[in-house]
Parts: sequence; C-alpha cells; structure tokens
Amino acid sequence: MPASPIRKLTPYADKAKKDGKKVFHLNIGQPDIETPEIMLDAIKNIDFKVWAYTPSEGIASYREKLAEYYNDLGYNITPENIIITNGGSEGFTIAIQACLDPGDEIIVPEPFYANYNGFACMSDAVIIPVLSNIDDGFALPPISEFEKLITPKTKAFFICNPNNPTGYLYSREELEAIKELCLKYDLYLFADEAYRDFCYDGNKFVSPMHLEGIHEHVIVIDTLSKRYSACGARLGFLITKNQKVLSTAIKFAQTRLSAGMVAQIAGQAAIDTPKSYFDKVINEYSERRKILVEALNKMDGVYCPNPGGAFYVVARFPIDDAEVFCQWILEKFEHNNQTVMMAPASGFYSTPGAGKNEIRLAYVINKNDLKTAVICLEKALQEYPGRVTMKETVSIEL
Amino acid sequence: MPASPIRKLTPYADKAKKDGKKVFHLNIGQPDIETPEIMLDAIKNIDFKVWAYTPSEGIASYREKLAEYYNDLGYNITPENIIITNGGSEGFTIAIQACLDPGDEIIVPEPFYANYNGFACMSDAVIIPVLSNIDDGFALPPISEFEKLITPKTKAFFICNPNNPTGYLYSREELEAIKELCLKYDLYLFADEAYRDFCYDGNKFVSPMHLEGIHEHVIVIDTLSKRYSACGARLGFLITKNQKVLSTAIKFAQTRLSAGMVAQIAGQAAIDTPKSYFDKVINEYSERRKILVEALNKMDGVYCPNPGGAFYVVARFPIDDAEVFCQWILEKFEHNNQTVMMAPASGFYSTPGAGKNEIRLAYVINKNDLKTAVICLEKALQEYPGRVTMKETVSIEL
Repeated sequence: MPASPIRKLTPYADKAKKDGKKVFHLNIGQPDIETPEIMLDAIKNIDFKVWAYTPSEGIASYREKLAEYYNDLGYNITPENIIITNGGSEGFTIAIQACLDPGDEIIVPEPFYANYNGFACMSDAVIIPVLSNIDDGFALPPISEFEKLITPKTKAFFICNPNNPTGYLYSREELEAIKELCLKYDLYLFADEAYRDFCYDGNKFVSPMHLEGIHEHVIVIDTLSKRYSACGARLGFLITKNQKVLSTAIKFAQTRLSAGMVAQIAGQAAIDTPKSYFDKVINEYSERRKILVEALNKMDGVYCPNPGGAFYVVARFPIDDAEVFCQWILEKFEHNNQTVMMAPASGFYSTPGAGKNEIRLAYVINKNDLKTAVICLEKALQEYPGRVTMKETVSIEL
Repeated sequence: MPASPIRKLTPYADKAKKDGKKVFHLNIGQPDIETPEIMLDAIKNIDFKVWAYTPSEGIASYREKLAEYYNDLGYNITPENIIITNGGSEGFTIAIQACLDPGDEIIVPEPFYANYNGFACMSDAVIIPVLSNIDDGFALPPISEFEKLITPKTKAFFICNPNNPTGYLYSREELEAIKELCLKYDLYLFADEAYRDFCYDGNKFVSPMHLEGIHEHVIVIDTLSKRYSACGARLGFLITKNQKVLSTAIKFAQTRLSAGMVAQIAGQAAIDTPKSYFDKVINEYSERRKILVEALNKMDGVYCPNPGGAFYVVARFPIDDAEVFCQWILEKFEHNNQTVMMAPASGFYSTPGAGKNEIRLAYVINKNDLKTAVICLEKALQEYPGRVTMKETVSIEL
C-alpha cells in the first residue's frame, strides 16, 4: 500500500510546530466536539471486576438497544442483524471478507475515503473508481458510467453517504438508481453511514435500508466515531438482513473474539444522548460550513461546492499541485506565525492525476480558529509561487 | 471457515442451563481472576473530554513504557519496535498481512490455537500442521518433521509459548532448533506469547527475542488479555525489530486508524501492577493445575501430561469421540444436577481424525468448583455409553 499524501505531510506539520508556528488542523476527521457526558460517565461508572470477553457479535442488551435505535430511523431490523465491530474499519474488513473473493471488484464513486483502498487490499479485492466531478458538486455520475465498468468480477458497490471527502449527500433518486444497478447485476451495496447524523439545510438522509426490494444486497457500516465524537472508542457496526452474509461475517468476528467491552458499555449509554446534544452539534457544524464555504468561494480562483452533509468540503484551488501547495504552506509560509494543514484531494482519487488542484478541508475546529485559518489560506494563495490562473487550472483538470 | 467444535456445543450448554443444571466452564480461556485494581481505576479516572483517535501505532507514552517493560524481560527493543493493536488477534492479522502473500504457507505444531486458521484464512495464507504427540507431552516434534514440509511457499513458522491448547512450555533448546530452521530457510518466526507470565515449577520462559542472530525474523504477538485478566480490553502488541515488516505493518495499522484509547490508558496503568498480584495469580493457577492434572491421571484410562505453562491441559480419555462425549455430558448427563463444558481437542488439530479422544480443559474456575467439576467428569466417564478400553483408545489413535 502506498503512503497517503496526508501522512506525507505530517513531518512538515511537526517541523512547523517545532518552529513555533500555530498549525490549524483542517486535514483530519477528528472533531473537536466534546463526547456526550452520558458516555464518559458510563466509562467512569464501570462496575465489573473482570474485564472479560463479550460475545463475538456484541453484548446482547446493546444489540437490542441498537436495533431499537435503527428502527427509529426506519431500518426495520432485529438485534440479530447487527454485528458490533472494533470500529467501522473492522466492519468494512469483515464485510469485504464475508462477501468477496480475492480479485473481486468493488465499484466506488471517487473521490472516496482513502482507507477503502486499504480495506480492499487486505482481502485482495480491487477498487474500480468512477469519477465524480467538482463542477457537478460531486453528484453521482450517470449510472451508464458505472454500468460500463461492470465485469464478471464485479461484486459490490460502495457508497459513503454523506460522503467523505466531498460532503455530498445522495438523494433518494440517486440511491434508487444505484439500487437498480445492484438488482440488475446482483451486486452487494456497501453503505458507509458514518456521517448520517450530519445533514444540513433541512436535507433528509436516505439509507439503502429505506428502499424497497434490496435488503438482501445491503450491508450498512456504521460507527460511533463521528456521531458522538468518539473516534477513540473504536466501535462500529455491520448491519445486514442477508442471513448468508451474517453467518459468514460472524465467523470472521469470532476469529477476533470480540469488540471492546468498555466501548460497548459506553456505546449503550450513548443511545440515550439527549436530542439537545445533537441539535447543538449540527448547528455548530452548519455554521462552520457556512463560514468555510463562503470564505473559500470569495477567494480569487477558488471554487467550493456547498455540500449537504458530513463535515468536509473538497474545493478547487488556482494552484499547480495541491500536494506541493499543502507542503509549502506548512514548510515555507506563515501569517502572524500561523499556518494550515490540509489534505490534498489526490489521496482520495485512484485515477492518476485526478484532483490535482483540489483539497479536502475538515471543519473540525472552532469558528474563531476556522476564520483565522481561512485568512491564512487566502494569504498563502496570494503568495504561493505555484499559483496558476483559472484557465490554467481548467487545463490541468483536462 | 468451518464452525469450531466448541461453538457447536454452545446450544447444548445453553439448554443444560435452561434445564436448571449448573455447568462448569472448562471450555474457554476466559479467566475468573479479577483484573488488577490499578487498571480498573485508570478507566474510572479518565479525564478527557473528547474520546479521540490515538496514533495508529499507539499512544507514545504507552509505547515508551512498554519498551521498558519488555526490556526488563531482556527483549532489548525501542518504542518504535511496538505497534499497539486491537487485541493480539489484530496483531496476528496485521503480521500475516505484512509478511505473507496469498497462498504462502505457515508451519505450525499442532494442536494449535484454532483461530490461527481464521487469521491465515483472512489473508489467504495456508496453515501446514506438524503433529505433536500427547505421549511426548506435546514437545516439539523432531525438526526433520518440519524440514520435510518446507516448500518455496513456506514463509513462516508459528509457535505459541506456553502453548494453547496444550500448556506446553518450549525449552531454549527447542527454540534454538526452530531458530536454525528459520535462518536456514529464511522464514519468519511468529511467536504468540499471550501466556508468557504463566510458567510453573520454577520453569523459565524463553522468547525468540532472547536468542542471538534471529531478530530480523521474529515477530512477537502479545496481549493484555491473560496477563491482567483483561480479555475485554482488546489490546495487544506486534513487536519486531525488522524495519521492513514494521513499515508495512504500520500501513495496515493506519488503515484501521487506531487501537482503543481507554484500553491504552488502562494498559499503561497496568504496567505498574504490583508483583504481589502476579505472585497470587500464578500460585492460584499452579494449585489448580495440580488439582486438575492429578485428578485426571487418577481416572481410569485417562492420561494428562503435566504442562509447564498457560492455564490449559489436553488430556486423552477412554472415549470413542470427544466431540460426541462433550455434547453427551451437557445433553444427557448430570451429577447432583451439575455438569461440565469442555473443548474437544479436534478443534485444535487440522489433521483429520487427530485428537479424536482428546479434550482441552482450561483451569479458569476456582479450586472448589474445579474439584466438583472433575468429580462430575469422572462420574460421566463411568456412565458414558461410548466408553472404550485403553487398547481401543490406542487403536483409534492409529
């Protein structure tokens, strides 16, 4: 597996900090939002004497409560449809191992969450990307684009909704189109719903679990990480109504024995997180998105679609190479002794050269810092030696 | 992956309990020993507000403390040689993914921990067993037995020391023999040291990390699970001095983001567990082993080697089929309304028919219960319709 362009920047960020610069982190999906108190209290109040294995599929009472939670979202599942995993990451690896053989292909709209490459690589599955376009706001490309990539090796379709890295929120119509494709070619539909709770402007989240007639195909991967700002819990879920997939997945789950006990205790408590917590969080993210998207689009030569969900944007910049720019801004630039760390979008594309002048920015820092960070960014764009005109930008894209 | 013979018994154990029988669990490696207070207190005293990702390789301060811990054992490593994993299980999957390609072969003395099959299966690696014999107390078979199995596909050698399921503790001489083989054929040596702390009769544990000239080949997999009776922490370690393996392993670790934060906080605290805790635990296990091994060898037709470590024994019984017997004792037998759940050893062999009249028993229940459980077992052997004479037993073995 190649090192990601984000990780390549880490030494430069470390050096900048060592040199006394303040670095604003817009590069990763680690929210600054506080974990709900009810969850932290559950950790502090543990009362067991033996920190024991839990059942491989997860603690029974937690799975029951989770089923109720998902049924409130309209998923219509039973506790038996849920396997509790060590993070959404493990949910993915188990799902791929349960559904795919080595050499099988997974079609994914790109840009996509870079670790999908790693999950696929672990099972010797192959990611086949379909390019979505910033000028369309990263909407689902025409289904004909997917259809022409289908081979006898194609086994699954991946979507992340709302999307990481683009923030794009898929519409019911788009999901229906994907559904038809999955039914026509008998494909699994893996749905990464890590950002389900983060939808803005009154947009309603739709899951493949809400669609009729596709239940045997759908595997939802979920996680506590973003919902409760509990990335360090390493707790996720594999949800499917497909009994054959479940019975194979549980064997892989048994091999690694169980998910963490304390994380499950905290996760079970978290289900009772008051609605006020989420209202506050969504409002906060929504305001940050507004600040970031407006500021970016005001910058000369920058274009940023206004995404419907998650806490990321992918923007196009008037620069020669985002990897070079993101290193330069850490290494050579400062404004009031401050700078910004961002994720070159190339790491989210597998088509060579795609996203070369695009950057993912995560709005996971407070509003004041975010405002300062975008001022830094604007100044940097003015000073950057590799700045190009918009015309050049478009030619780079082609 | 086939379902294990142990898991097949679960419905019968559940039924027995439902029928009001007391079931003594000698079937699994979940100790009844209390987790050290220092560890539980660390959980209760967490003081973070955001349950965040930790570095993919583990929290820096914990890796430093772990390096000191291993250096006290004579491993001579640095913090950079340690990757903290979600359980020893994840340590194995990462190690196999980092070192082996699909189709590569791993040689393992059998009987072996059944989940090795699962870890290998996840990476399409192939387990090649070498039969060790109960009449030799499950000592390492002659190196010539291993050597004749080596092919161009052979990439690694697995040992679990002290061994699960047999409790066998490998001698320095045996490890030196394995070392020579690994050097001669350029093989990795994966060493599962989950039970390192549980050695009896003054026997000294020897790790491949203690041997000269083989460091580039050795990957130690360790876990908190048994040492601190913290199976539910899901925290383990991959330790190697091989830089190439480390740099590949870290990429797999990055794909799953990080290990659990609370588990690492508790693990770091656990390093200061007082010696008195271990003295008490080792003494307890040692007494249980004596009770179990003596009682088994007193039973007519039963043979149980006295193992040097871990908290398991594998014994041979005068029965037709251990899988049938272990089901029968749950389903059809009771003594004072009590019965015993055990693990048929067949699940730990991959050679068909091997271990058919052997059973693994874990001494993870208190001494009084253990004494009652062995009385149950003795009565059951007297009543069991599939009982065979010792002569028949030997012929079954052949």
